[in-house]
Amino acid sequence: MAERRIVILTEGRTIPTSAKTASCVIRYKPNEVVALLDSTQAGRTSGELLGVGGAIPIVAKLADAPPANTLLIGIAPAGGKLPEPWRKVLLEAIDRGMNLWSGLHDFLSNDPEISAAAAKKGVEIHDVRKNNERDVSNRLNLREDCLRIHTVGQDCSVGKMLASVELTLGLKKRGYDAKFIATGQTGIMVEGDGCPVDCVVSDFVNGATEKLILANQHHDILLIEGQGSLSHPRYSAVTLGLLHGCVPQGMILVYEAGRKNVHGMDYIPLPPLKKILEVNEMMASLAMPSKVIGVAMNSRLLTPDDAEAERERVRRELGLPVCDVIRHGPDELVDAIIAYQKKLFPHLAARAG
Amino acid sequence: MAERRIVILTEGRTIPTSAKTASCVIRYKPNEVVALLDSTQAGRTSGELLGVGGAIPIVAKLADAPPANTLLIGIAPAGGKLPEPWRKVLLEAIDRGMNLWSGLHDFLSNDPEISAAAAKKGVEIHDVRKNNERDVSNRLNLREDCLRIHTVGQDCSVGKMLASVELTLGLKKRGYDAKFIATGQTGIMVEGDGCPVDCVVSDFVNGATEKLILANQHHDILLIEGQGSLSHPRYSAVTLGLLHGCVPQGMILVYEAGRKNVHGMDYIPLPPLKKILEVNEMMASLAMPSKVIGVAMNSRLLTPDDAEAERERVRRELGLPVCDVIRHGPDELVDAIIAYQKKLFPHLAARAG
Repeated sequence: MAERRIVILTEGRTIPTSAKTASCVIRYKPNEVVALLDSTQAGRTSGELLGVGGAIPIVAKLADAPPANTLLIGIAPAGGKLPEPWRKVLLEAIDRGMNLWSGLHDFLSNDPEISAAAAKKGVEIHDVRKNNERDVSNRLNLREDCLRIHTVGQDCSVGKMLASVELTLGLKKRGYDAKFIATGQTGIMVEGDGCPVDCVVSDFVNGATEKLILANQHHDILLIEGQGSLSHPRYSAVTLGLLHGCVPQGMILVYEAGRKNVHGMDYIPLPPLKKILEVNEMMASLAMPSKVIGVAMNSRLLTPDDAEAERERVRRELGLPVCDVIRHGPDELVDAIIAYQKKLFPHLAARAG
Repeated sequence: MAERRIVILTEGRTIPTSAKTASCVIRYKPNEVVALLDSTQAGRTSGELLGVGGAIPIVAKLADAPPANTLLIGIAPAGGKLPEPWRKVLLEAIDRGMNLWSGLHDFLSNDPEISAAAAKKGVEIHDVRKNNERDVSNRLNLREDCLRIHTVGQDCSVGKMLASVELTLGLKKRGYDAKFIATGQTGIMVEGDGCPVDCVVSDFVNGATEKLILANQHHDILLIEGQGSLSHPRYSAVTLGLLHGCVPQGMILVYEAGRKNVHGMDYIPLPPLKKILEVNEMMASLAMPSKVIGVAMNSRLLTPDDAEAERERVRRELGLPVCDVIRHGPDELVDAIIAYQKKLFPHLAARAG
């Protein structure tokens, strides 16, 4: 793949919760991103609005951006549909010879106008969610001493992907053979492989996840990105298929401090953290004994003092290690994973560290 | 729709567990079925092999069947793929001017050879699982006093659809306004409407189920067909999406007496019935308070004496009404549903009975 020089489309929604895909691509591929496209915020910077990406400029139109060869859709709207006003922008990008990357459920390559324009101009369309998974899970041939750690969440958009990536990087830094297993469009854009499980036909979610595990279990530790929540009114099907497909021995519970209601459904309260932990342990253990071994706190909205108080409160309440992988760094949870590996598979502990 | 005269394809698998779709269509549409097509069992009858359908003949080839205008695929193989040897039979049926009904995941209408032949001959292809569901659940506008009863199971192929249909018929016979909500290909073939939730993209399973509820909640009691099991290694994603999409106030637990291992995965033991009950109540109650109010026992493999003993044992173990809706009739569970409606919505109790 030629080097990407990416403009990320975040029109009207350059805020951390909506522009989740944008934020993550900027965080992990900062050298590939040349601009954000949001006519409502032109002149400002990515760092100002998203807290990542420093001086990467926000521009009003493609013509104002530095030279680029890729337009990447940087938000993931509920339902995954293409907002109609964006069509013009996509067609303009194609006209400028840019490739398109999209994580929408509505595949750009299935859109007659867009795919015809792309074919005519010879540009590529990457529909990251497109798949034709048709295999069921068999729960056979799992490597016994591959440690599968799954990030499970209180809700959507709490930071499961971020925690998974940061823990993988933390383990690698300590010499462990760890691999991030991407299960959503943003993770796949960052990692370059994975499976968009939320776009798999429901009968095959468990099977598609299992295939990811089988393909990667030559690594000693897998950090499998969670999706949604077992209590999520909309997406719990995805969450449980993923949990039962990756059969984790251990889980990291991810939550956002201060969040009271379901993301995008503020009339539905979230269950208490302790309940979410119990439900995950119960459902995971239907497949094999599994427990939550640590908590990744997203303390984005808290002051430093409040974040420390919250961390201590949750440590006491759940009796588990707790950290914000961005604010505090991932070390406390990395330690917990290493200790868990040592406990379950002592013969592997000597390999690194 | 013109009257169907159906030949059901069950080649090599005319046994109750494999020919689930066939058995159910024969049970509920006996006047539409003219023959079964299974070259390995020609000369025998549906009644002998499936226990339903009496003298409906089994024939070796289409030319041996009574006049028919429809070929219906009567099995649901794991993975939903079309067994390659059947292609010839389907093409012959098309050539004879027969319409096709299929519940496979591999859509016949997407198969170039089959769809071209059908178009040429002017026959219809009904891919019952085909859908383009793209709506998320909102959990709004649910009719408060519509009683939603969901059949949940110990495993696949235990009789959830059968229990749902028989309970609906039992309630109607007592004058209640009940409706069977089909969620799988067989149920849809029997009922004429519904949603094939196991073929919906996983992000939209909860939403597709909710749409079914919203469209039918003018009925007082809905009997929503369950799929798989919350502990099923392969299909738990479907099961939970369905459970959270239909937000039942009550559940009927369906199991097969004597089954020890997961259907088709005999190396994986089933959890105890009591555990399955607890897991279902816990997961359903994340959405709204919900409990199991009765047990539908499938005692197919038991002698009458053993069936009575098993029924008593489970009644005592779980403290719930128990019956085999076929062997005993559905009355004990119909009574339980009526009593539950009276308890939750006393103002509706006077409407029927």
